[in-house]
Amino acid sequence: MPANTAGKDSEQTITCKAAVAWEAGKDLSIEDIEVEAPKAHEVRIEIYYTGVCHTDAYTLSGKDPEGAFPIVLGHEGAGIVESVGEGVTNVKVGDNVVALYTPECGECKFCKSGKTNLCGKIRATQGKGVMPDGTSRFKCKGKELLHFMGTSTFSQYTVVADISVVAITDKAPMDRTCLLGCGITTGYGAAVVTAAVEKGSNVAVFGAGCVGLSVVQGAVKNGAEKIIVVDVNDGKEAWGKKFGATDFVNPTKLGGKSIQEHLVEMTDGGCDYTFDCTGNVGVMRAALEACHKGWGQSVVIGVAAAGQEISTRPFQLVTGRIWKGCAFGGIKGRSQLPDLVDDYMTNKLKVDEFITHRQPLNKINTAFQDMKAGDCIRCVVNMREV
Amino acid sequence: MPANTAGKDSEQTITCKAAVAWEAGKDLSIEDIEVEAPKAHEVRIEIYYTGVCHTDAYTLSGKDPEGAFPIVLGHEGAGIVESVGEGVTNVKVGDNVVALYTPECGECKFCKSGKTNLCGKIRATQGKGVMPDGTSRFKCKGKELLHFMGTSTFSQYTVVADISVVAITDKAPMDRTCLLGCGITTGYGAAVVTAAVEKGSNVAVFGAGCVGLSVVQGAVKNGAEKIIVVDVNDGKEAWGKKFGATDFVNPTKLGGKSIQEHLVEMTDGGCDYTFDCTGNVGVMRAALEACHKGWGQSVVIGVAAAGQEISTRPFQLVTGRIWKGCAFGGIKGRSQLPDLVDDYMTNKLKVDEFITHRQPLNKINTAFQDMKAGDCIRCVVNMREV
Repeated sequence: MPANTAGKDSEQTITCKAAVAWEAGKDLSIEDIEVEAPKAHEVRIEIYYTGVCHTDAYTLSGKDPEGAFPIVLGHEGAGIVESVGEGVTNVKVGDNVVALYTPECGECKFCKSGKTNLCGKIRATQGKGVMPDGTSRFKCKGKELLHFMGTSTFSQYTVVADISVVAITDKAPMDRTCLLGCGITTGYGAAVVTAAVEKGSNVAVFGAGCVGLSVVQGAVKNGAEKIIVVDVNDGKEAWGKKFGATDFVNPTKLGGKSIQEHLVEMTDGGCDYTFDCTGNVGVMRAALEACHKGWGQSVVIGVAAAGQEISTRPFQLVTGRIWKGCAFGGIKGRSQLPDLVDDYMTNKLKVDEFITHRQPLNKINTAFQDMKAGDCIRCVVNMREV
Repeated sequence: MPANTAGKDSEQTITCKAAVAWEAGKDLSIEDIEVEAPKAHEVRIEIYYTGVCHTDAYTLSGKDPEGAFPIVLGHEGAGIVESVGEGVTNVKVGDNVVALYTPECGECKFCKSGKTNLCGKIRATQGKGVMPDGTSRFKCKGKELLHFMGTSTFSQYTVVADISVVAITDKAPMDRTCLLGCGITTGYGAAVVTAAVEKGSNVAVFGAGCVGLSVVQGAVKNGAEKIIVVDVNDGKEAWGKKFGATDFVNPTKLGGKSIQEHLVEMTDGGCDYTFDCTGNVGVMRAALEACHKGWGQSVVIGVAAAGQEISTRPFQLVTGRIWKGCAFGGIKGRSQLPDLVDDYMTNKLKVDEFITHRQPLNKINTAFQDMKAGDCIRCVVNMREV
């Protein structure tokens, strides 16, 4: 049954299909779930397309100590507003939207600082897997399901806080805009906003998946001169070049020389900017140490496994290297995502090129398998095809 | 014999008193040493006063893997130019000067970057304890002595590269300006230049020695609202307040609560800026983790023991904290030190207050003992009193 024929009403619960994670380490299960109507300052979205990201896989694996079950995963989704609760003014029924796992209230200390995109307003409840009022909108077989990252896009309908959604032009295809909900924005923003890469600089990007290739795009946009992609998979050389990288290095093929040593040589002293897009703490260290003394900065983007720590000699910092990081690329979803969509619509931002795989909702577990394959950049799941 | 009666001539070797470090872990020994005339682009300085700093003690201890002996230590010195080699244009005989362990050539990639004070021009030879031409100017009992940090201020006469010295007004007393050669400038610059502390911000300074108290001064200058001094020595509370700190915390008296937790509570979310002035890698971690999510930045100033590493969870960076560091406060000695001297002369920068102890050259080992005492901020050694 396609989702759009499900019975719905802004006051009523909708029954629809969703991929439910009942427990850690198990496949997702396609279920009929009940999605309650949105309460005040909440928005119910019909999700059309969702990407599948390593963060979903990480939580599903059970390795995330904060992961709880049963839960509706997914955080990279686009759709159309089906109904809104009382007091919602930023979106209306029928709007094309992208769900935002990094909300933007515009009122909290964080939003008002002008220094970060990390809104603090609903952080506590979002972390616990519930809506801002402390309850869930999802039920299945009589059991409550948890929300994930404030978005839960692996359901044909989801409910999010109004500060966790942004309206975009309806001219942009949703199977593309969903990817702006995480991977592309994260990498692109890390280069353009967080690092603010300077014209003429040398950049190294560790890991050439969706995030890494988006960093490359951001570096190209800002006029970097040398953009070195570092990946253990030689197949990523062509991918890097497609997005504008000038060089490729496979760190396993350096004959015992460390990657940081190699990059320092390649760039006559070190990189001006490096980006970790792997989540591997050893790579994070290499990325910092590949930076130029005096000013090189390294941006941690990847999410490390629980309990893992980064380390280095403090001399690396005393001699002028900067270690920083970001979530969602430092991009404020409600203020800045529409600009990224415009860039896409005017061919300034590549999005189509990231989609290497597609799956219908009922094959979402295959999408998780796809993600682990070396030739997959992003797999987009069609939520209305079951 | 006072130094200024020693036979001297710009072409000739000078014999004078110096504190020689013959080997690691032993006291310094007052010796008659021969100081060769300056070669091209070198300057011979009669040192009047020198501070004694923890870095001298660290190298003397033998724990510095790059420390070599015999050597003339000392890097915080002021004096008068005695003679100059060919091609020296930036100082002339009779100038009051401060020796700079961080040189400034104005021509190398680093100097021209506008992003760092770490000049690269003579780094390699300075690190090896020799002059830029690869040789030493010091001899004692027929043996060559190594230079230290390009300055070697524990000698009545020293020879430095012309890029390692800055002329300042002769109105500033040299027993004060010597301290601008390291400790005061390092802390003050870290706050004003490296962190560029913003008006109204919350600052925590770990370690209230000469460097830490200078950070406090810099934070006061830039209009910080709350300046918290953290030190295990309760006696430092009064010191902190004297320089403008608003609060004091002894981390050993928190009943098991971590210092980062305590500071986050004190500042409603964390500090905007923190500074490690201890060289302890555990403290460096605490300083980072005491930063405010989203924008807090931590500056590593202290020099850690060899082989020690800093570590933290990468989540600290992904959620917006920034880890950086600096040497000599990020201050360019030749361009910026004269301004600091002016600030001192116009009562905008405290210097006198740091001097708690004084010793003559022949009691320089006592000065090292003084430094370890809790009530010592800086001990100034009179090089002409033997």
